[in-house]
Amino acid sequence: MTLIEEARNGRVSPEIEAVARHEGIEPASLARLVATGRAVLPRNIRREGRNTATGIGEMLSTKVNVNVGTSQNLNSPDDEVEKALAAVAAGADAVMDLSTGGDLDCMRRKILEAVRVPVGSVPIYNAAVRKELTSQGLFNALEKHAKDGVDFVTVHVGVNKNTLERLGNDPRIMGVVSRGGSLTMKYISETGEDNPYYSEYDYLLEIAKEHDLTLSLGDGLRPGCIEDASDRAKYMEFIMLGELVKRARAAGVQAMVEGPGHVPANEIKTSVKAMKYLTDGAPLYLLGPLVTDIAPGYDHITAAMGGVIAGMAGADFLCATTPSEHLDLPTKEDVIEGTYVTRIAAHAADLTRPGVSDRARSWDLKMARARADLDWEGQFQAAINPARAKQIRHRRGVETDTCTMCSELCAIRLAKEAMEKGVCKK
Amino acid sequence: MTLIEEARNGRVSPEIEAVARHEGIEPASLARLVATGRAVLPRNIRREGRNTATGIGEMLSTKVNVNVGTSQNLNSPDDEVEKALAAVAAGADAVMDLSTGGDLDCMRRKILEAVRVPVGSVPIYNAAVRKELTSQGLFNALEKHAKDGVDFVTVHVGVNKNTLERLGNDPRIMGVVSRGGSLTMKYISETGEDNPYYSEYDYLLEIAKEHDLTLSLGDGLRPGCIEDASDRAKYMEFIMLGELVKRARAAGVQAMVEGPGHVPANEIKTSVKAMKYLTDGAPLYLLGPLVTDIAPGYDHITAAMGGVIAGMAGADFLCATTPSEHLDLPTKEDVIEGTYVTRIAAHAADLTRPGVSDRARSWDLKMARARADLDWEGQFQAAINPARAKQIRHRRGVETDTCTMCSELCAIRLAKEAMEKGVCKK
Repeated sequence: MTLIEEARNGRVSPEIEAVARHEGIEPASLARLVATGRAVLPRNIRREGRNTATGIGEMLSTKVNVNVGTSQNLNSPDDEVEKALAAVAAGADAVMDLSTGGDLDCMRRKILEAVRVPVGSVPIYNAAVRKELTSQGLFNALEKHAKDGVDFVTVHVGVNKNTLERLGNDPRIMGVVSRGGSLTMKYISETGEDNPYYSEYDYLLEIAKEHDLTLSLGDGLRPGCIEDASDRAKYMEFIMLGELVKRARAAGVQAMVEGPGHVPANEIKTSVKAMKYLTDGAPLYLLGPLVTDIAPGYDHITAAMGGVIAGMAGADFLCATTPSEHLDLPTKEDVIEGTYVTRIAAHAADLTRPGVSDRARSWDLKMARARADLDWEGQFQAAINPARAKQIRHRRGVETDTCTMCSELCAIRLAKEAMEKGVCKK
Repeated sequence: MTLIEEARNGRVSPEIEAVARHEGIEPASLARLVATGRAVLPRNIRREGRNTATGIGEMLSTKVNVNVGTSQNLNSPDDEVEKALAAVAAGADAVMDLSTGGDLDCMRRKILEAVRVPVGSVPIYNAAVRKELTSQGLFNALEKHAKDGVDFVTVHVGVNKNTLERLGNDPRIMGVVSRGGSLTMKYISETGEDNPYYSEYDYLLEIAKEHDLTLSLGDGLRPGCIEDASDRAKYMEFIMLGELVKRARAAGVQAMVEGPGHVPANEIKTSVKAMKYLTDGAPLYLLGPLVTDIAPGYDHITAAMGGVIAGMAGADFLCATTPSEHLDLPTKEDVIEGTYVTRIAAHAADLTRPGVSDRARSWDLKMARARADLDWEGQFQAAINPARAKQIRHRRGVETDTCTMCSELCAIRLAKEAMEKGVCKK
């Protein structure tokens, strides 16, 4: 039985028990969320003992995924393993291996060995790099990833003749910016056949079920610029993904959906809510959304801005972007920076998230109390990145009990003294 | 006549003409916004010829202020001038001198000489540093700043016996975190008298009017942590500021209001809207809002996240925060980073802003077209910080026409080729 089937049968599996304890919710509540598909716990049975279950979805804290992987220009497997380890050390909840350069199988297995968080991958890259962009090639790749123990896979099932017809009727500035989406289009354009993952989706579900592999239904038609946001092709893909979520759940397969992309800040809430409605509340995995196009070099930040807004509206899982987005393969430092900034967005969203906000607020309260007491050690301990906070505070070698910005004019201290004198009484 | 009085008499002054042209709106419309106080153009008549008018408020693009200034621990005037120049070079629309160390008068004059953007200051710091925290000392400081040509001043008029009584009835974790606010409390606690800027507000307005000085009504009671957000003291201050805006307008003095502080993401919209209602649409100058407390070292980002949300809700002017916030006086590099990140927030808000979004979107469109064409020079030109984008792209010395992330699997190119083959037709 798959996890979702067990949960439907009323069994609280050890993974559900562990995740519920970690999140501070009732195991039985989490089992119900898993049973209805509103939360997923990506974990491939082939990786048992080497993966730590993590919950993504309603009533659970917002999670952060970090992408690593080689490219054809830059293929250094050890660097990518280091990046994965650095991401986890910086607090990533999951890692995706998006390698497209060198020996992809070896790379994937190294990442799976190196970390214990859930690992995701994109099988179509394998097929493409091996020049096996055929139905057989696609399913072989999927099966190989599943057998290797990958916990979740992105499959761009929403890119099919129906959604592409919508795209054709409503041209974009940037067209399609998803690699998996564009490879699927290449397949369709070369063969005249529809996307095999879509047309043979039942077969795909069988493979997923066999390994209890969680599907991440990719947003191949995510908009690549502000001008393309919220168009009909995107909403058509939401509808498709909704149908495919329904079929996955019926087959006993866990599924989440991926969301766009580049979206102006005032369209994010509608986009997230629409996805939630159209996919019957499937856990939503957000790439960005980037709230502007004009900031290459800062796209970990433009994405995190969108991430907070999306999280407030119900997004469950944020994919970290790095300062290198749109420009270059990220360095390890970029990955670390992207991880922290995305975790900040996830936490800021958690402060507003049903079922999660109380626990999230207790972290901020710890910091607030340390600040009120000018307790610097306490502030460092409560900081999301203590090393950075410490470095900035001590970089000039000036030692004061306040900060070097306010010095003797410390507002906290002055106000406290005035209040003790009774300034607040009439 | 002050600018607001001229505008009421139907005169379109050269400053209004220039700002309207820069913003792409009708001069007569801007004159109406100035006449009603819904937009301000901070410019001290004493600084004529050395200041460039900038518009802040409804129908105008979101502006960014950057703070510089010495502290008692770190007093290097030349460094602060350099920071001011670096901020302007990075696109700051205004600069505030918040100096509290060394010769404050000299510092202020240096900044006023160095830049042409509007310059703001906080006279109460002067009074405090000179140990003249008396009614006379406060007004002397204000008058001196006005005579020096400062274009706008923060006065913490909302911190008075009435608002402090509310604070006393509703204690906070962090108390008061505004330096000006805490100094005002110190004055009240030591003298038993109310805040002179409040009790003698008519006199304050006279001084402001004489120099056509714009008032920035400070949010001395802004919350300093998530736990303190949206409390009664804060809303009491909004009400006070609303009354004081009304009196400023009646006196022919331009006024804007300052907003909090630390606010969870889901309370920002309400906070901004309430301020707009309670101050009859006064231009809103936002400090932050920081959407979480737990990220010292990244508070330029937590503030920018809040800035986007506040901007969407109607905030007009964002104060840049730097990575040093809560820890140390910022370095020049911090100031530059804070300026860019805050400008990104302002622009992301502008993409959603009535009367502004079309022009803002044309910038993103330029980037989108350059990306669609893999035109790297065009991308650098459209980048908010071209040097950074270029540095990241070229740092490894790998030269390709795509990026090193996607290499041959460039989605943009693959999708374009597939679309040219007709994949979008039924």
